[in-house]
Amino acid sequence: MTLEKVLARIDEDLPDATGRLLELLRIPSISTDPDYADACANAADWLVADLRSIGFDVHKRATPGHPMVVGHARDGKDGKNDGPHVVFYGHYDVQPVDPLDLWDKPPFEPAVEDTDAGRVIRGRGASDDKGQLMTFVEACRAWKAVNGSLPARLSVFFEGEEESGSPSLVPFMKENADELRADVALICDTGMFDADTPGIVTMLRGLVGEQLTITAASKDLHSGMFGGIAMNPIRVLARIIAALHDAQGRVTVPGFYDGVTELSDEIRAQWEALDFDADAFLGDVGLSKPAGEQDRLPLEMIWSRPTCEVNGIGGGYQGKGFKTVLPSHATAKISFRLVGQQDPLKIRESFRQMVRDMLPEDCEVEFQPHGASAASQMSTDNPLFEKAREALSDEWPNAAAYVGSGGSIPIAGHFRDILGTDALLIGFGRDDDQIHSPNEKYDMRSFHKGIRSWARVLARLED
Amino acid sequence: MTLEKVLARIDEDLPDATGRLLELLRIPSISTDPDYADACANAADWLVADLRSIGFDVHKRATPGHPMVVGHARDGKDGKNDGPHVVFYGHYDVQPVDPLDLWDKPPFEPAVEDTDAGRVIRGRGASDDKGQLMTFVEACRAWKAVNGSLPARLSVFFEGEEESGSPSLVPFMKENADELRADVALICDTGMFDADTPGIVTMLRGLVGEQLTITAASKDLHSGMFGGIAMNPIRVLARIIAALHDAQGRVTVPGFYDGVTELSDEIRAQWEALDFDADAFLGDVGLSKPAGEQDRLPLEMIWSRPTCEVNGIGGGYQGKGFKTVLPSHATAKISFRLVGQQDPLKIRESFRQMVRDMLPEDCEVEFQPHGASAASQMSTDNPLFEKAREALSDEWPNAAAYVGSGGSIPIAGHFRDILGTDALLIGFGRDDDQIHSPNEKYDMRSFHKGIRSWARVLARLED
Repeated sequence: MTLEKVLARIDEDLPDATGRLLELLRIPSISTDPDYADACANAADWLVADLRSIGFDVHKRATPGHPMVVGHARDGKDGKNDGPHVVFYGHYDVQPVDPLDLWDKPPFEPAVEDTDAGRVIRGRGASDDKGQLMTFVEACRAWKAVNGSLPARLSVFFEGEEESGSPSLVPFMKENADELRADVALICDTGMFDADTPGIVTMLRGLVGEQLTITAASKDLHSGMFGGIAMNPIRVLARIIAALHDAQGRVTVPGFYDGVTELSDEIRAQWEALDFDADAFLGDVGLSKPAGEQDRLPLEMIWSRPTCEVNGIGGGYQGKGFKTVLPSHATAKISFRLVGQQDPLKIRESFRQMVRDMLPEDCEVEFQPHGASAASQMSTDNPLFEKAREALSDEWPNAAAYVGSGGSIPIAGHFRDILGTDALLIGFGRDDDQIHSPNEKYDMRSFHKGIRSWARVLARLED
Repeated sequence: MTLEKVLARIDEDLPDATGRLLELLRIPSISTDPDYADACANAADWLVADLRSIGFDVHKRATPGHPMVVGHARDGKDGKNDGPHVVFYGHYDVQPVDPLDLWDKPPFEPAVEDTDAGRVIRGRGASDDKGQLMTFVEACRAWKAVNGSLPARLSVFFEGEEESGSPSLVPFMKENADELRADVALICDTGMFDADTPGIVTMLRGLVGEQLTITAASKDLHSGMFGGIAMNPIRVLARIIAALHDAQGRVTVPGFYDGVTELSDEIRAQWEALDFDADAFLGDVGLSKPAGEQDRLPLEMIWSRPTCEVNGIGGGYQGKGFKTVLPSHATAKISFRLVGQQDPLKIRESFRQMVRDMLPEDCEVEFQPHGASAASQMSTDNPLFEKAREALSDEWPNAAAYVGSGGSIPIAGHFRDILGTDALLIGFGRDDDQIHSPNEKYDMRSFHKGIRSWARVLARLED
């Protein structure tokens, strides 16, 4: 049987597949920092060359930002152009690497490591999203090697701005809607529920990113000479941040909870059955107490409730030692995770108005938006969802579950809203992958069984 | 008359004196940053060589930190060792220069500039304190050139850690008490009351510097995966900072106001007579409203009331773009300016306890002290105070005034407490010198008339 041969080929080819991933990981494609624009282009070129070598008609496509990579395997099954059209999405850009001194090895010198918890691939992007993206590419490679052709009308669609708000994504999808529209979109940028239980994400939080800079004096001042009489923008900023949550952990931005829906009894029962171990989840990162809304389940806090977090703050002197400066300005980066029908733009505007209302005399505020996307709720009516769930269940010890995800993957909503294409969010990341953090890794088991999982999903979609 | 000749010599020598100051300003002696330790040593060497060239018996004296420079003009007046012993104090270290991009020129490439407000010497340390320190050195040089000897038993005592909490100062003064004890200490590290009115500072605020780092998770987390369930240390820090002042601008640290004394009617009357222009003082830096305790005079806010300021804050992602990180820790640098009999160590401990009391579960705090000094109140009974006031009044358009100072110059208290020596705080800085800020400058008029002022003070001390 074809699938068995493909799986065997995947097992044999794992060392070479790992080598290819390490190559891609060596390219420092940090999309948010303009200094790495060339690296982003290099990562796109690398993918174009690799996909071309396995038969994709693939090109780097310019955008106002970093390029897209779009490829099509037009020969389809047995050289024919029939079967369902499947488009696979991933992103080749990665998060910044600071604080660099917390990495045990340079983030762009990836390596395979044996750890107590098994073999891992270490390096920035290993899990998010280069390793995940390559699970699909390697499944295609094996399929092609065994069968001489790919199993369906496959397209691949990789972006390079996912970690920086995807400014070019929506315009590109709109301009190329006919080309990208498919019967189903496969997205590999999420995680397993646990080591033995794959998840298909059907509920995704949205994201509003916002940067604010409070300015008081026109220049930095000496805190001896001006301290006590001049407005301190750090104090103003701290007061605003402190006011964003009430004592119960609820967000205080006016109208914030408009459009937030409660869990259905069915989903709540399913989640309770998952028996989520919040103590272990938090314990892994040195915490013990769920810090969100105090009247909510831990799984609600991370999957189905909206949040407001401060992702960065800076002002005044932060170097070694001490400096008695009274700074001119202070900045914070704040993000809101959205659920249900929360309106990203209304929330942005309400937040800005709340900040303006709290501003004392002599202070000014400047806002800088960093992306805005609503939450997504997948419809599982599409029969391909159930086929995929069965395929995953064949590969892993436990049956696959429909789950939520705290992270924002706006692409899923875009596929639905712009192209009318349902998205299957299947990923093999683990909670301890340290994505966006120092020492990011991807389990070799995730990589290996992830490739095998995609082969099984492709085979099922063929049925 | 000798003084007239000395003043004429000072006028003639001003271009060369300016050149010498520019040389000293080129040495980047940032004491708080260990990377600049060699530069601090170089600045000390430069001073030793310069003072030796005008007849001081002077040496660089090692400390656990940056070296002291101590010199003695043992020949005294007319080669005799009589007259009052006068010790002059200044500091050769400077503040850090960030944010570097706000400097119009590199901070350690000083230059003389003609501005709308007159000629200035621009560069880090021009006013604080290299320019001020050199006013005294140049006065000595001119005196020696005219008279062949210095006018009194003069000593100079320069430190290189003033901008980083002076950790070596007290031990050094204790170990060398007999050598440094004098009839009066002259300290040049303060400012004019206004362009035409020199000030002798008799009231100085103390300073407690404190750095705190709040740690929650054991590593940086992804705000999608962990946002809403994991404690965010930036939020905790913001809540603490927001709680440090009440709505009236009073500091809320328990016991903070213990030992704060009210102004005497006499001093209050004198300060009201100075007709301080708060609008202009604030307007110069783009502000309009005194931001301190709302029931206090502006001069009280900067001279005689205690304060709490945040001098720096940092946590999470601060680079370009956005990063959805939920950081492991966040840090702030906080300083307290003290007055009257406020106890620096009690305030430090009370602040720490307040922070600990506000810490939520799952958070830890680490404190790092950065200096602690009480406020100083000079006794003006010493007849040398009145002599100095007359000498200053001879040089400047307006009579000199006894004033307060918001900045902390702990050395004055040390002279009194360790050596029993009264300190005369005379300086020629201006409010717009931008000390501790980008584009620091020293007015050429301050430098020139400052040198002449010291010549007059030295002549008066001889009487």
